[in-house]
Amino acid sequence: MNVFGEKWTFTSFGESHGAAIGGVLDGVPAGLHIDFDMIRSELERRAGKGMVGVSTRAQHEPDEVEWLSGVLDGVTLGTPIAFIIRNKDARPKDYEYLKHTYRVGHADKVYELKYGIRDYRGGGRASARETAARVVAGSIAKQELAAKGIRIRAELIQVGAETNPAKFADTIAAYQKDGDSIGGIIECRINGLPAGTGEPIFDKLQAHLAFAMMSINACKGFEYGTGFGGVTQPGSEINAISGGISGGISDGTEIVFRCVFKPTPSTPKAGIKGRHDACVATRAVPVVEAMTALVLVNYSA
Amino acid sequence: MNVFGEKWTFTSFGESHGAAIGGVLDGVPAGLHIDFDMIRSELERRAGKGMVGVSTRAQHEPDEVEWLSGVLDGVTLGTPIAFIIRNKDARPKDYEYLKHTYRVGHADKVYELKYGIRDYRGGGRASARETAARVVAGSIAKQELAAKGIRIRAELIQVGAETNPAKFADTIAAYQKDGDSIGGIIECRINGLPAGTGEPIFDKLQAHLAFAMMSINACKGFEYGTGFGGVTQPGSEINAISGGISGGISDGTEIVFRCVFKPTPSTPKAGIKGRHDACVATRAVPVVEAMTALVLVNYSA
Amino acid sequence: MNVFGEKWTFTSFGESHGAAIGGVLDGVPAGLHIDFDMIRSELERRAGKGMVGVSTRAQHEPDEVEWLSGVLDGVTLGTPIAFIIRNKDARPKDYEYLKHTYRVGHADKVYELKYGIRDYRGGGRASARETAARVVAGSIAKQELAAKGIRIRAELIQVGAETNPAKFADTIAAYQKDGDSIGGIIECRINGLPAGTGEPIFDKLQAHLAFAMMSINACKGFEYGTGFGGVTQPGSEINAISGGISGGISDGTEIVFRCVFKPTPSTPKAGIKGRHDACVATRAVPVVEAMTALVLVNYSA
Amino acid sequence: MNVFGEKWTFTSFGESHGAAIGGVLDGVPAGLHIDFDMIRSELERRAGKGMVGVSTRAQHEPDEVEWLSGVLDGVTLGTPIAFIIRNKDARPKDYEYLKHTYRVGHADKVYELKYGIRDYRGGGRASARETAARVVAGSIAKQELAAKGIRIRAELIQVGAETNPAKFADTIAAYQKDGDSIGGIIECRINGLPAGTGEPIFDKLQAHLAFAMMSINACKGFEYGTGFGGVTQPGSEINAISGGISGGISDGTEIVFRCVFKPTPSTPKAGIKGRHDACVATRAVPVVEAMTALVLVNYSA
Repeated sequence: MNVFGEKWTFTSFGESHGAAIGGVLDGVPAGLHIDFDMIRSELERRAGKGMVGVSTRAQHEPDEVEWLSGVLDGVTLGTPIAFIIRNKDARPKDYEYLKHTYRVGHADKVYELKYGIRDYRGGGRASARETAARVVAGSIAKQELAAKGIRIRAELIQVGAETNPAKFADTIAAYQKDGDSIGGIIECRINGLPAGTGEPIFDKLQAHLAFAMMSINACKGFEYGTGFGGVTQPGSEINAISGGISGGISDGTEIVFRCVFKPTPSTPKAGIKGRHDACVATRAVPVVEAMTALVLVNYSA
Repeated sequence: MNVFGEKWTFTSFGESHGAAIGGVLDGVPAGLHIDFDMIRSELERRAGKGMVGVSTRAQHEPDEVEWLSGVLDGVTLGTPIAFIIRNKDARPKDYEYLKHTYRVGHADKVYELKYGIRDYRGGGRASARETAARVVAGSIAKQELAAKGIRIRAELIQVGAETNPAKFADTIAAYQKDGDSIGGIIECRINGLPAGTGEPIFDKLQAHLAFAMMSINACKGFEYGTGFGGVTQPGSEINAISGGISGGISDGTEIVFRCVFKPTPSTPKAGIKGRHDACVATRAVPVVEAMTALVLVNYSA
Repeated sequence: MNVFGEKWTFTSFGESHGAAIGGVLDGVPAGLHIDFDMIRSELERRAGKGMVGVSTRAQHEPDEVEWLSGVLDGVTLGTPIAFIIRNKDARPKDYEYLKHTYRVGHADKVYELKYGIRDYRGGGRASARETAARVVAGSIAKQELAAKGIRIRAELIQVGAETNPAKFADTIAAYQKDGDSIGGIIECRINGLPAGTGEPIFDKLQAHLAFAMMSINACKGFEYGTGFGGVTQPGSEINAISGGISGGISDGTEIVFRCVFKPTPSTPKAGIKGRHDACVATRAVPVVEAMTALVLVNYSA
Repeated sequence: MNVFGEKWTFTSFGESHGAAIGGVLDGVPAGLHIDFDMIRSELERRAGKGMVGVSTRAQHEPDEVEWLSGVLDGVTLGTPIAFIIRNKDARPKDYEYLKHTYRVGHADKVYELKYGIRDYRGGGRASARETAARVVAGSIAKQELAAKGIRIRAELIQVGAETNPAKFADTIAAYQKDGDSIGGIIECRINGLPAGTGEPIFDKLQAHLAFAMMSINACKGFEYGTGFGGVTQPGSEINAISGGISGGISDGTEIVFRCVFKPTPSTPKAGIKGRHDACVATRAVPVVEAMTALVLVNYSA
């Protein structure tokens, strides 16, 4: 389903090559002043403005948000905030040849199995374009959190085998030149979250963060604190490393988690035409932040 | 909160040293024949019967399930199935000295912060004892899935740095002897799941699996398919490895995921008395299967 | 909150004098052929086209639906269906004088209490205009139900003290002439619903129908079967009258329920300018049908 | 399903002639002092202690609550509160003759249709006995509300055609003597609820109250404020009567609603043996209060 959260309920809609994508954010309190410039800036981060290895389309589609409801004179009304981004640059012809073809590694086949029908135009809902709506909603959540002193900051910490950020651009450019693609790891840090956020049994904070991250296209893993690497450390040594969460509940220290993004399988090297990224992880950074923010505003305490 | 799932809704309750732990499983169809022997056997796996490095208590607490409702003559009625396991071996005195002490790495402190009150008796809800109720509910789910040809099988694939299963017992015994503890990685495989299970955007199958696994105590990470290791593989190579899920939806092939469990921080080496396991991952195996089953029965298709 | 249903999840948005109202309907199966003419016709019923006592605005606002997603070539894709109706005839000036005035009997005051801010423009979300989005979503639900042989038909059965339908128009016209308004009772009948729809304890069919009807503006009461009138009949006599629901579950016979709508308090006689209906119950008929349809598609069986 | 509420989540279980009925109440804050005497007293009201026309069984079944979790030394822990009431007086033989008989007006037939299996023992889940668990959970909710100055008080205001409370006992006794049964109307008043409780669109306060009341066995209608009677009053007159709710949100004044309960169809006059009440409405009074309390604790503000 296309609904996320029970307190701040975010409904996402829109096919990547239909009339528009958009969302409805219900549960935002009245009286929040919206910083539209920040939202534009977040959409530019997602579009990969000025980044290496990003497809032409992403850079040239100006994501203009049209606000339909919930905001009056820049202030939230407490009613649902609906917004759309029109698909100006829709070029279905690029994909026409795929009408009777399944793209390897893409969800096209399972979609047709499930729905008995397939919107072959650019992946339909499965397209990464859907994440633009998440970024808009998440930006509003981030503004609410920032007003409470809670900061979320994600960054790329690994591209392929490379862990030196200064070399990420060159690494990506090399794969792009080769008609190939490569994965990456994003690390996200949450600061200022009061101790006591989370629930002890099923609704653990790390469970909701994992759910949100794994709902992002191409994310193949989530870990926090000592993560997978911690498997070799005995209990006597990792004692003090909580990753900011203890028993499912924030403990007041910095929360650190990581997630891994696989490379896109649709590459020229794999024989797939179209416009795709050499490293989707670069553009996933603001999406990770947005989903983190949507998780946090859904907790009461 | 203590409720999991919307179709098969499982409510868990009980403090580890209170009168009883238990659960209510609502949404189970009428007419399912319950195999009580299998449930007993799953509880013995969770209790670590015959395993190395397991605390005395776990091995000696006979988890006897008392069925309160929802089953008549061994067949489900379609009404909520309520069950309890009494805490026979409750020995609160062991923990009396902790009344005014916080255990390092435990959730005691955040609990008191959050609730203003603390049930110091053996970790209260945070205790791993709560997972016995998950195993009972998950066993019923597994029986329903088995009847449809869906099989779930988890196993320990790594203990500390050791990846040879033949050496796991020795490795654990060594840490136990040292008064220490060690983590492990569990791999879970799902077979027979029809293609089409899952939802494309937020309710992706991998997101629900990650949520369920991260809700288990001591689980620090989740990955599926190529996972974290895949970060070094270019798109042209990992193309065909889906991990059984594509675009959030099962594709009909075997689903494979892994999760990592940290060692318990309450060890003699860390100065904590009590009864604890040298490697909690061994006993987490049936819990991973149980939670996987509860995820799968909550999807319609 | 502005979200209804868990299987077919309908999210409603839009202030009556903002840019647009609209909705997102998630969970509609793929492959349903949408009859757009039927939806237009239902919106005209709600607008009171050709009816007595209806405000000028309602009759002249042509509710044109703009479809944003979820439908391709008239067939549903299985993805969320988003639609908007622009507020062409927005005339905020009519309400300017209310900026610092509370309208008697209106929700303005509680809104300001609750949200600390008030969208004084025509009642904001509290306006009956919001029901247009319900009618669009409900119409799609009705089309799905009709394809399964389930028919929903509501009609006005009482206006003030009048129970002769032939005299309803005259009765309403008399109140309108007097600058006053009057209430009405709507009866709704569901036919073709298979026995077994509903749940026995909390999620009884009648509970969900009551919830849906009481969520419509101005609805002050709900009853089914023998209803309030049945209080004087002994058990030996009403035995056989189930109203189509037994123990919370449909029994396969016709379901009959009624709901009462109070007159609008904003009348010229009460000193309130603006454009209002003499009998809101007349236009509530398709809204009652729409909400009934949204209840029924949210049950699985 | 058997789960009510999202903030205070109440799960009910148990067949009337199985081992026990009970419930789990999740979401109760830590630190609430439980008044067990008040709960016992509420259960006696539900059992009809000292009332006319109540079946022998109800009066003689001493509903003893066994507390399983969530409470330590009389104070809530913030963990799920589980409780059971054993069915001591279970006498399945009384119903043995019904094993192959459907009781007229009862839900037996639809249950078998829906579940393919039937727990013929005394109505199974459909029995009014299930409401005892609601009363226990609702009593805890009432205690929380009382601590905030919110009072709920329901009373019987009509039995058959009789509206004089002094004559209710005689009226019921007459129907009982005749081997028949009769319906009644209960009025409930909520005082002290702060203005601002409720939501404007679907989750209106009156919608949730209607849902909760219509989920009680034998309830055939709900109305608030002017209700069905108000249909004859013009808008100019009913202006000021809000019933305490405006636009779905409490306005700070007393909330008044009514619901009607039909007579039990299982009477000696209808040829049904067993133990049944002459007027179920008398014993429904504390159930109405309990469900009202469960609605109110599920709102945040």
